[in-house]
Amino acid sequence: MTVDPVELTRELVRCPSVTPEEGGALELLETQLRQAGFRSWRVDRGGVSNLFARWGDKGHAKSFGFNGHTDVVPVGDPQDWSVDPFGAEIRDGQIWGRGTTDMKSGVAAFVAAAIDFVTETPPDGALLLAITGDEEGDALDGTTALLDWMEAEGERMTVCLVGEPTCPERMGEMIKIGRRGSLNAKIRVQGVQGHSAYPHRAVNPCHALARLLDRLASEPLDDGTDHFDASTLAVVTMDVGNPATNVIPAQARATLNIRFNDLHSGASLTENLETACRELDEAFGTRSTVEVKVSGESFLTPPGALSDLVSDAVEAETGVRPELSTSGGTSDARFVKDHCPVVEFGLVGQTMHQVDERVSVAQVEQLKAIYTRILSRYFA
Amino acid sequence: MTVDPVELTRELVRCPSVTPEEGGALELLETQLRQAGFRSWRVDRGGVSNLFARWGDKGHAKSFGFNGHTDVVPVGDPQDWSVDPFGAEIRDGQIWGRGTTDMKSGVAAFVAAAIDFVTETPPDGALLLAITGDEEGDALDGTTALLDWMEAEGERMTVCLVGEPTCPERMGEMIKIGRRGSLNAKIRVQGVQGHSAYPHRAVNPCHALARLLDRLASEPLDDGTDHFDASTLAVVTMDVGNPATNVIPAQARATLNIRFNDLHSGASLTENLETACRELDEAFGTRSTVEVKVSGESFLTPPGALSDLVSDAVEAETGVRPELSTSGGTSDARFVKDHCPVVEFGLVGQTMHQVDERVSVAQVEQLKAIYTRILSRYFA
Repeated sequence: MTVDPVELTRELVRCPSVTPEEGGALELLETQLRQAGFRSWRVDRGGVSNLFARWGDKGHAKSFGFNGHTDVVPVGDPQDWSVDPFGAEIRDGQIWGRGTTDMKSGVAAFVAAAIDFVTETPPDGALLLAITGDEEGDALDGTTALLDWMEAEGERMTVCLVGEPTCPERMGEMIKIGRRGSLNAKIRVQGVQGHSAYPHRAVNPCHALARLLDRLASEPLDDGTDHFDASTLAVVTMDVGNPATNVIPAQARATLNIRFNDLHSGASLTENLETACRELDEAFGTRSTVEVKVSGESFLTPPGALSDLVSDAVEAETGVRPELSTSGGTSDARFVKDHCPVVEFGLVGQTMHQVDERVSVAQVEQLKAIYTRILSRYFA
Repeated sequence: MTVDPVELTRELVRCPSVTPEEGGALELLETQLRQAGFRSWRVDRGGVSNLFARWGDKGHAKSFGFNGHTDVVPVGDPQDWSVDPFGAEIRDGQIWGRGTTDMKSGVAAFVAAAIDFVTETPPDGALLLAITGDEEGDALDGTTALLDWMEAEGERMTVCLVGEPTCPERMGEMIKIGRRGSLNAKIRVQGVQGHSAYPHRAVNPCHALARLLDRLASEPLDDGTDHFDASTLAVVTMDVGNPATNVIPAQARATLNIRFNDLHSGASLTENLETACRELDEAFGTRSTVEVKVSGESFLTPPGALSDLVSDAVEAETGVRPELSTSGGTSDARFVKDHCPVVEFGLVGQTMHQVDERVSVAQVEQLKAIYTRILSRYFA
């Protein structure tokens, strides 16, 4: 082993790369990768830095990709931390600091695995690294910028592993093979203002909205599918802002968030909501509109060669057979899935985004070993 | 006829008695009443002036009472008026100014009728006037102060006529024999905050509140009674104020207004709402509270001698048989009803509280004639 993933994690943590600051993190990685024989390109867009690196031939049929990010969320009030959040101190077998779990240790582990692998056992194939500095922010100029650039340059990953933390509690217990989609819908119900004493002369938008929201919240979207939990709908706010108790207001608004599985799409859900609004208007005499913003469609990399490969490697190193899951929020895998089959595997992410974020030294070493084993099996 | 109700209305309008200012209005009335042989008392409380006057013996079994107010709502921007709002100009057969309909003309008409009546045909009985300067404001120290004082002094009306405008469009078409009650209820639903992606770990107060409001708005309170329309419930606002689409909020609030008939009371409706909240909490795991403020209980002076007397007088003067109604908002009759049987009759109130408030000269004269006829019949 030539690259120590623990030391590399610590060096990365000491780079204060709070989105959109590069903080020296990509610079550090690029230097090490070039020394190991990787070619590299900085793919900067919209004030954000990204790094693409390749070992081996462009367009090789066996091109294994890793994806990850070096940017981190803000530390909040540094006084709340037990340690310097950019100090990367080791205490009690843990590395402490912002980004230690999410996800500088993951990047360090796959960079260390990649460098050692190509150095020690140069494969017949290519190893591609797509590392972004914009995952925690708007993510408009991060992995998407890398994928756009790769498309233009003819760079292609055959498969991709995203190194985000995926294990809820125990190392090795979960691989993500897809994610639910997410959308936000703003509903606006227009009625007719009036006096509370004469409700028959008004059209009360509150009554219409309450009916609609109760209906949407009560009717299950589905019962789940083979690889997905049931889709969920949450009303997150409802607002009128009328201070006058003797006035029926003209308008009521609500916002809801839907996390949806592969039985739905942003378009099908939008159509359902629009139909519900039209039915409401017919029943109440209101005029309703819905404005939908799809954050991401659901996707699935069906269980198969890639998930087997990763699962076998995880089991060999940890003794745990990982669950193939599609739970949780979004990640950059939602962009990568349009490029090639993608799965996600990383360590336990319990302290992500928290004060005193920290990661077990042993887990970082184990993660490098798992990634190395994945590469060995892939190129075998 | 010795007192001209039109001139008295104009003199009252020229007194700028915007609540809680007395503005010289009660002073003016007191002087005229004393000259006509009334005894009078100023009943001032909480910075508000009120006037009680009596002709005849205290405690007489036939004591006819009039109730009204001389205070007026603000004029708003005087620039919006076509006339000086306190000028009492006569144009096109109308007296223009703040308080011309609500209700200086009504007070002028009953004061003029009362003075002329006792002067010309002194009855075997008593005539009581309870005139307040606090009806348009909080009404805490107005008619209630007068009634408290009367109770303490042993002054008692056998029946009472409130001179508020009661006719929607045509003179004489409506007498009020009661009013619906009114209450406001603030509902607060406490859930458990959480992430929109994991709704099963949260308790969404929006879902619970939507269910409750839909239920309350959908289930009729009743079908109306002999003298009352159906009670109504209007949700007037629902508010959460959560800007984060990935967060399920901890709390949701709503306010509703109920106008209720004689099948309900503030207490019975409060109990119903509290029961609904408890059932909601059992179904959703929320903690809900309801805070009720009763503005007025419903009341009814059942059709009978008093309403017949007033109806006959109205019909004799106008040719219109008035409807006995309980519609509309609240008035001081809600306080008087605890003292004695009370009905309300006055002229057409279409411009009440508006810019360019005005009243027909002919209607003011007709109103005095109706009140005079009521007195004649009552003491006959």
